[in-house]
Amino acid sequence: MPDTAIFDVDGTLVDTNYHHALAWFRAFRRFDITLPIWHLHRAVGMGGDQLVSHVAGDRIEREHGSALRAAHTDEFDALLAEVRPLGDAHRLLADVRSRGFRLALATSGLSAHAERSLSLIEAHSVADARVTSDDVERTKPAPDLIHAALAKVGGTSAVLVGDSVWDCRAAAKLDVPTVAVRTGGFSVAELTDAGADTVFESLPELINALDDTPLSEATEAPQPR
Amino acid sequence: MPDTAIFDVDGTLVDTNYHHALAWFRAFRRFDITLPIWHLHRAVGMGGDQLVSHVAGDRIEREHGSALRAAHTDEFDALLAEVRPLGDAHRLLADVRSRGFRLALATSGLSAHAERSLSLIEAHSVADARVTSDDVERTKPAPDLIHAALAKVGGTSAVLVGDSVWDCRAAAKLDVPTVAVRTGGFSVAELTDAGADTVFESLPELINALDDTPLSEATEAPQPR
Repeated sequence: MPDTAIFDVDGTLVDTNYHHALAWFRAFRRFDITLPIWHLHRAVGMGGDQLVSHVAGDRIEREHGSALRAAHTDEFDALLAEVRPLGDAHRLLADVRSRGFRLALATSGLSAHAERSLSLIEAHSVADARVTSDDVERTKPAPDLIHAALAKVGGTSAVLVGDSVWDCRAAAKLDVPTVAVRTGGFSVAELTDAGADTVFESLPELINALDDTPLSEATEAPQPR
Repeated sequence: MPDTAIFDVDGTLVDTNYHHALAWFRAFRRFDITLPIWHLHRAVGMGGDQLVSHVAGDRIEREHGSALRAAHTDEFDALLAEVRPLGDAHRLLADVRSRGFRLALATSGLSAHAERSLSLIEAHSVADARVTSDDVERTKPAPDLIHAALAKVGGTSAVLVGDSVWDCRAAAKLDVPTVAVRTGGFSVAELTDAGADTVFESLPELINALDDTPLSEATEAPQPR
């Protein structure tokens, strides 16, 4: 049984995925590249370091990768003010913490965006640690963020809460169970096919069902001697 | 076998669903109502007359329905200039027409938006008729648009090409087969569960597979005496 709960932030606790998809669409358009937005949407949740080649190929990554990421940051910045937290995000964190879990918040995004997201859900009062892309070499779907989160809170075994297939795939590589929510816009089948143990429609629905998930009660983590 | 191909426009031929989702999010925010964008996204493709109560309940529809639809139009207008056609939309229409089908284009949206979408894909040179929400009493998922489209082109049997579960459900009510594309952001399972016969990732993929779909070749429609 896990002692640590790792929460993905973007798309899971804060309603950002559609803004990210549109920001990527606009970023690519600056380079006269038009991509179907649904395809960008389904790539959100990977790190930006991996997204460009995933959606547009290795040549575009080589030629414009860094500039496209800068353009995406610029476009997302312009939308950031209207981003809202998902309902009951803070209550979910507090409830999971009260069950004895160490709490880590993981974001593939940039620190500046993460700061605003975390303040929207008043995360600082409940989270033990946060990990961002700065803490790892490879972002999701690589599992490095999960390793980094466990290390930061001194946990031994994790459960991940996320919204994207990239969360599920990263966790599956480490045999970490994933509780998924549909708030990022992925479907039930997409999430279960990627390895999610259970899928909930909303954070309140997950809160009501916590007893039936690996978030039911934390195991006692080994104390340092 | 069908003699008429009915194409949904928004989300199927033109990449509008994510803009519509964001426009609805912003429209509701004007009334201090915050809805998860993924939920709005999955409701896009129903008519606006049905969407408000579907996502926010009957009370909000009664109190703000018309004002919310006006706000959505306003917000979508502000995004319209960046909307792009989906790749090979015109080629798909021309190919299906060359196989002998009568071609009807169906949009639940407003005439002004439809005009721009149809010009983006140069639809006027290939389509026999268009039907909009002005032509019917009830929009999708009611099947009235399909009836109206068949009547306008004088066809007897239809196949529908669409991107949303609302397209699939409308067609299923009339035993009209649906060829679905993922361009609107629904998943394969969501579309097949709603009744889609086959699901394609893109319009070029559908073009390549036309021989294996009900769009293979049109039946001769009965001639008027």
